[in-house]
Amino acid sequence: VRNIRWGIAGLGKISGRFVADLALVEGAMVVAVASRSLDRAKEFAQACGAERAYGSFAELAADPEVDAVYVGAPHTDHHPLTLLFLGHGKHVLCEKPLALDLAQVQEMVGLAKTKARFFMEALWTKFMPHFGALRQAVADGAIGELQSVQANFAFIPPFEPEKRVLNKALGGGALLDIGIYPIFLATTLLGRPANIHAQAVFGPTGVDTQCNMLLDFAQGQTAVLSCSLSYTSTLEAHIYGTQGYIKLHSPWHGQCPAISIFDDQRQLVKEMSFGTKGNGLYYEAQAVNDALQAGLLESSTMTHADSQLLMETMDRVREAAGIFYV
Amino acid sequence: VRNIRWGIAGLGKISGRFVADLALVEGAMVVAVASRSLDRAKEFAQACGAERAYGSFAELAADPEVDAVYVGAPHTDHHPLTLLFLGHGKHVLCEKPLALDLAQVQEMVGLAKTKARFFMEALWTKFMPHFGALRQAVADGAIGELQSVQANFAFIPPFEPEKRVLNKALGGGALLDIGIYPIFLATTLLGRPANIHAQAVFGPTGVDTQCNMLLDFAQGQTAVLSCSLSYTSTLEAHIYGTQGYIKLHSPWHGQCPAISIFDDQRQLVKEMSFGTKGNGLYYEAQAVNDALQAGLLESSTMTHADSQLLMETMDRVREAAGIFYV
Repeated sequence: VRNIRWGIAGLGKISGRFVADLALVEGAMVVAVASRSLDRAKEFAQACGAERAYGSFAELAADPEVDAVYVGAPHTDHHPLTLLFLGHGKHVLCEKPLALDLAQVQEMVGLAKTKARFFMEALWTKFMPHFGALRQAVADGAIGELQSVQANFAFIPPFEPEKRVLNKALGGGALLDIGIYPIFLATTLLGRPANIHAQAVFGPTGVDTQCNMLLDFAQGQTAVLSCSLSYTSTLEAHIYGTQGYIKLHSPWHGQCPAISIFDDQRQLVKEMSFGTKGNGLYYEAQAVNDALQAGLLESSTMTHADSQLLMETMDRVREAAGIFYV
Repeated sequence: VRNIRWGIAGLGKISGRFVADLALVEGAMVVAVASRSLDRAKEFAQACGAERAYGSFAELAADPEVDAVYVGAPHTDHHPLTLLFLGHGKHVLCEKPLALDLAQVQEMVGLAKTKARFFMEALWTKFMPHFGALRQAVADGAIGELQSVQANFAFIPPFEPEKRVLNKALGGGALLDIGIYPIFLATTLLGRPANIHAQAVFGPTGVDTQCNMLLDFAQGQTAVLSCSLSYTSTLEAHIYGTQGYIKLHSPWHGQCPAISIFDDQRQLVKEMSFGTKGNGLYYEAQAVNDALQAGLLESSTMTHADSQLLMETMDRVREAAGIFYV
């Protein structure tokens, strides 16, 4: 099986972490990187051993010796860059959130199908060992019937209004950046919400600095979810069932060190611990590289439908909370 | 200072726990107890050393040697029994929730004022040492500016449809029985909510078995609250601020063993531990007995306005969630 030749588009912090973890994957090599700044591209290429550095994304798209592109640019670039690379016949692994709304996601998925190229949202959490253990425990009935998913993701970023997180023009705000994690947890375990209530608080730069959500599902299950950029949360999550609950330890969305299963009297039944590997992006990188080597066009772990449901739910939350992007 | 002579109305589990803790209070004695069952009253009186046992509440109300009555009957009896005892000139400590809605609470408060008698909702949590420490820490700015109060209270009761908790006719359901605790936490720390979103799930007996709430407040603060009778929760609560957060350990609403203060990097700054005293009702019993001996008509810790705000908020949640009592 030959190496998958990767290109990296957007050379910020997340791309650095992805490239470091891709180095742990057998059968993968980074051959080219691209940024709007050629200096930045050269610097990044040198650091990761990539042969070619480009000062534009179009050059990367035109590189015939690139099989797949990882899109790690700001949110607002996800949609245009994914279309660019798919359009040039590249496979694409695009950072979450895939886009700003469902219509953009549909267009991206449609082009991937038309071009017969692999396309996936880089929702790393779903590929991690603790998340697999969680899904298995739930499927095994370890906590009986699911009743409620409750999760929070909040941190206080540096106050840099021009940068992505607090910048409305770059798709900033708590919901799109980190609210996606609690929503992902709920839709993965419970499917499509029947109804959504949401509230938002807006900060000085106009982005949502708090967004809290209540979801309900057809079988009488609920989700109680929060995200914020104005406080720091525990980064724990709880999955409640009729016979007990599961606690995902902090940070639940990332390299979660353990999950604990409690019975309905709050007694610990079982605790599973997990090590770390690289920056935690290794697992999705390995899975995607394997899929590419196998000639697949879609991941069975993070499907197009999963991404569509996730973004549709984010759109509904946005509407319920009155959050708009410019 | 002479002893306060207490009567006990309603002789279920909570009254047994209250009487046990009242025995730890100096200057208090239980002189009479009443139940609809004289046998039950005699049994209870013997167990707690009360001189007189009544098979009706009217007899207790007419007993001239009773100064104050503790109302520990089911929720639906709180309003009529409080009016009965106040009407006969007794001071009243009534279990939470005071009534089924704000109109009833207003009537109770009005009669207490007219009769010039002490009247208080037995919200024991507010009198406990950990709760005082929490309020002090928040007031001292230990976590900066408050941003969000997040709390849950859920347990699975035995499936006894005729008993109070699952019986719609007795004011059953999660919100009124245990949802009052998270709401109390939010209104105590943040005041009156500006807006309320809520959702409810209903069980086989028609009562709300899940009720989840989003509250927002004028200063951009929020509360994310849950209660349920269909799963068991951690009974932890978190108070999030701009500079850190406070965790109330389980059970946060009762004899909470500790509160921990974390900074905005999730590092533990301070932990305060608390012992237990009796069943934890001791603290409110002592405070109320002191107030009675001092001739006060209202507690400065749990005021009439506090109870009115609490019930008004519960009414608003009920309306938002579509919960109705018969």
